[in-house]
Amino acid sequence: MEVKVLSDIEIAQQSNMKPIAEIAKEWDILEDELELYGKYKAKINLSIFDRLKNKPDGKLILVTAINPTSAGEGKSTTAVGLGQALNKIGKRAVIALREPSLGPVFGIKGGAAGGGYAQVVPMEDINLHFTGDMHAITTANNLLSAAIDNHIHQGNTLRIDARQIVWKRVLDMNDRALRNVVVGLGGKPNGFVREDGFMITVASEVMAVLCLAEDLMDLKERFGRMIVAYNLDGEPVTAKDLGVHGAMALLFKDAIKPNIVQTLENTPALIHGGPFANIAHGCNSILATKLGLKIGEYLITEAGFGADLGAEKFLNIKCRYGGLTPSAVVIVATIRALKMHGGVKKTELGKENLQALEKGFANLNKQVENIRKFGLPVMVAVNKFTNDTDAEIELLIKKCEEISVEVALNEVWEKGGEGGIDMAQRIVNMIENEKPNFNYIYEVDESIKNKVNKIVTEIYGGKGVVFTNKALKQIKKLEEMGLDKLPICMAKTQYSLSDDKNLLGAPKDFEITVKEVKVSAGAGFIVCLTGDIMTMPGLPKVPSANKMDIDENGQIVGLF
Amino acid sequence: MEVKVLSDIEIAQQSNMKPIAEIAKEWDILEDELELYGKYKAKINLSIFDRLKNKPDGKLILVTAINPTSAGEGKSTTAVGLGQALNKIGKRAVIALREPSLGPVFGIKGGAAGGGYAQVVPMEDINLHFTGDMHAITTANNLLSAAIDNHIHQGNTLRIDARQIVWKRVLDMNDRALRNVVVGLGGKPNGFVREDGFMITVASEVMAVLCLAEDLMDLKERFGRMIVAYNLDGEPVTAKDLGVHGAMALLFKDAIKPNIVQTLENTPALIHGGPFANIAHGCNSILATKLGLKIGEYLITEAGFGADLGAEKFLNIKCRYGGLTPSAVVIVATIRALKMHGGVKKTELGKENLQALEKGFANLNKQVENIRKFGLPVMVAVNKFTNDTDAEIELLIKKCEEISVEVALNEVWEKGGEGGIDMAQRIVNMIENEKPNFNYIYEVDESIKNKVNKIVTEIYGGKGVVFTNKALKQIKKLEEMGLDKLPICMAKTQYSLSDDKNLLGAPKDFEITVKEVKVSAGAGFIVCLTGDIMTMPGLPKVPSANKMDIDENGQIVGLF
Repeated sequence: MEVKVLSDIEIAQQSNMKPIAEIAKEWDILEDELELYGKYKAKINLSIFDRLKNKPDGKLILVTAINPTSAGEGKSTTAVGLGQALNKIGKRAVIALREPSLGPVFGIKGGAAGGGYAQVVPMEDINLHFTGDMHAITTANNLLSAAIDNHIHQGNTLRIDARQIVWKRVLDMNDRALRNVVVGLGGKPNGFVREDGFMITVASEVMAVLCLAEDLMDLKERFGRMIVAYNLDGEPVTAKDLGVHGAMALLFKDAIKPNIVQTLENTPALIHGGPFANIAHGCNSILATKLGLKIGEYLITEAGFGADLGAEKFLNIKCRYGGLTPSAVVIVATIRALKMHGGVKKTELGKENLQALEKGFANLNKQVENIRKFGLPVMVAVNKFTNDTDAEIELLIKKCEEISVEVALNEVWEKGGEGGIDMAQRIVNMIENEKPNFNYIYEVDESIKNKVNKIVTEIYGGKGVVFTNKALKQIKKLEEMGLDKLPICMAKTQYSLSDDKNLLGAPKDFEITVKEVKVSAGAGFIVCLTGDIMTMPGLPKVPSANKMDIDENGQIVGLF
Repeated sequence: MEVKVLSDIEIAQQSNMKPIAEIAKEWDILEDELELYGKYKAKINLSIFDRLKNKPDGKLILVTAINPTSAGEGKSTTAVGLGQALNKIGKRAVIALREPSLGPVFGIKGGAAGGGYAQVVPMEDINLHFTGDMHAITTANNLLSAAIDNHIHQGNTLRIDARQIVWKRVLDMNDRALRNVVVGLGGKPNGFVREDGFMITVASEVMAVLCLAEDLMDLKERFGRMIVAYNLDGEPVTAKDLGVHGAMALLFKDAIKPNIVQTLENTPALIHGGPFANIAHGCNSILATKLGLKIGEYLITEAGFGADLGAEKFLNIKCRYGGLTPSAVVIVATIRALKMHGGVKKTELGKENLQALEKGFANLNKQVENIRKFGLPVMVAVNKFTNDTDAEIELLIKKCEEISVEVALNEVWEKGGEGGIDMAQRIVNMIENEKPNFNYIYEVDESIKNKVNKIVTEIYGGKGVVFTNKALKQIKKLEEMGLDKLPICMAKTQYSLSDDKNLLGAPKDFEITVKEVKVSAGAGFIVCLTGDIMTMPGLPKVPSANKMDIDENGQIVGLF
């Protein structure tokens, strides 16, 4: 018998979605708190927090991963599947994920809706305009840009130094031609000529602010604090100085409300906000996470990239601002990726290789150790592939046992919630038996250098940090401005614990070089760049857009 | 007693909106055909056309105006008020309007939601992101731009001539610094350097296409025909050649569906599409208009600018593509504006001036004559201001009687539907007693020069057209490409029947100079530019954005 493997979009299109209003009802969200966007998407009014303020919070579970390889570890898929599985064993679990960006959808196969039988739906909508949050970010970001150029054009009373404008325009599009542009050409009626550039929308500080804001007023104040330029005396000029932070906040009157959709098994999924995982912190909004904790016994969420970046920033930045304490952390690993960390070439991954697996385990071992440094219970979830041999799986389980870490096999991609029951039962047990003793890796009132040094030595396993002269100058400036007492947002390759993407496994004795230090004063963190970070992707030779189509019945092809 | 005059937003915020689902039910729209966007906005599925295909259409009423002055004539307000008034006298009337652009909202007081007691609500939503249609246009337009630059970067197999790229990027923002830009700077990884520019989103041909498309497949085909550049042999390169028209159409899976909201008196208002009234045709979508004709006995719609531009394009372009025949045309006039057409300065408008009124009547007279040339019943609606004297009103009515045109006083701004009952009764009588004998001013298979000449001599009252050498060359090119048999879309000042904004009243013996001729092959019209048309507005010294704010209860101030 031939078994046809269905694509993600085919599985999604066959799903039995319930009207989202019905799901909301089942999860005690009142009709008045729900704003429908069609039948299967809705926003939830922030008034729900007031109604539920005395209800105890559920347990927070973070799903993270080993350092990923280009093969992909299946972090979102595991988060979705774990949520489905918890509901299968009678627990009320909710999922919180990031919103996908439109740009990559047209570029290379992508999206953040999970996969196989562990997906969120309607995936076409989630991956296209969804409820318009991305567009609100694009608009607010570019309103601020227009205000900057207009201010200079109209007389520049703030004495903005056109050479020191740090605020870029954005578009939700992969468009390399916009990385570096010159604007204001064409003479006096068109403003002053200057260099500018576009980033992809998710890289905007507006996105990071949305994801860290407590409420609409906090959002507005954070917008107001965003630094857009420096004046001729070198002093910062903010969005508040330009007087447009109120208008920006107004653009978010709906976008600030978390979105609710469902998984293939009708588990509620809150999808809200999705900042870049490098120049920003890479987690969905605090509001969505807190909402999930209010309506569920368990809230499963994920963070971008591997645990050294994603979990570190989730714990040191998001949890700190949100006052959140995770009950457990799940680290997703695949046999394939661990073999790559052990030195196997991509083309050889189909073959059993116990030696490489054992060697590559060092990466997983280090990530487990790191989560324990935060004082949190940790479990490994092995995302099973058909090529994995019994001997490999046995070895991986044995290695996990050696370091006394709980481990579960995870087949949610193939089987949905059913494939995650073991994982769900183990995490429930763990949470019931092991209490978190959560602490941050650094305190915000330490010096920037100390904070970065702690991340590098404690988390990455490196021996120290080198700051370039440029970075040192920028640190001094931040200290002078009194903006150094903020959490650190590391921008580093996701592929290695070090800043060299080719150093796999668990490298030692390396140094991290910080080339640039910037403040995101609205979001409230200091970005330390260790390499060239691409903030505007380009399209490939044959973009995904060229394979997409829609027919007269609205049937979509080629989206995934 | 002191009477406080409320602002538009104050009136709107005090309105008694019904849930839009309730209104939809009252107007025989099925639950399954409605996609809610919150409680007060919804999209209507195109499947409704199939269900209602055997239901006879209602009567189409176009609201247009004399050549406007900066004082404003109140066309949208009259359209909304007339709809309310028709319902008050027991007729089932629906309104179809254009969607406002976000850009001007932040720039100068604006928006297209009517005014006073003749508004559509929720006005905050309609004027901000609404249901995301504008964002879909921005995204599709810029996907095409990214595809152009990416194609060149990846080898340029279509041999696109980078000097002849006619497709610009867009943003829904007033941002003069983006009018003329250079993109692709920064060396090889960032593409080829070239000149480009941004227009405001509503100026995109994508918007014009949305408003003229019959259905999703027609939309896709029209996107495919859009010319983005010329190759090194001077041949057109289209969106279809770049292979992204399917992806663009996919972005419109929701945006193609007309939006339904309501007036202050709960009359259904279909607000969908809003192309620029100069470089495009300036009317809401054909789909919304046709939908209104299916669900109402009367469908009232409006067209941009004065009747010489708005009505001419509505009748020669939109009605031709949509197979629509209006039952009547309403021309909005104000005593103030007619006095300005009679030579009175803006500062002197408060004083009675019968002589100027009589002189300025020439403009209204010409617009009435024009509508009659199309074979359509016509009525004048005088938008009454408190400063208008009895003698002035009497004179205007007498002048209208002299040319045997029906005239009604219109107080909908102050009184809502109640203030338009006379107007409603007269238009119903007119439609019952006077049958349209609709004809176009030109046929599409005439030459471009003939078509333009007919518009200028028949509608504007000019003596002829001068084409610049550039325009002549462009006409020849369009003839060679076989793209000359399309309707004409004139781009001309809205303030005068001529191409000189200072020639008020009904000028004679003037010539119109066509400086540039461009094809919008997807929209399906030929744009003839008579002057410099601004396609990207700038922000004023103190933008409206700086007065806007939102408080912790979501209360908005400063929007209008």
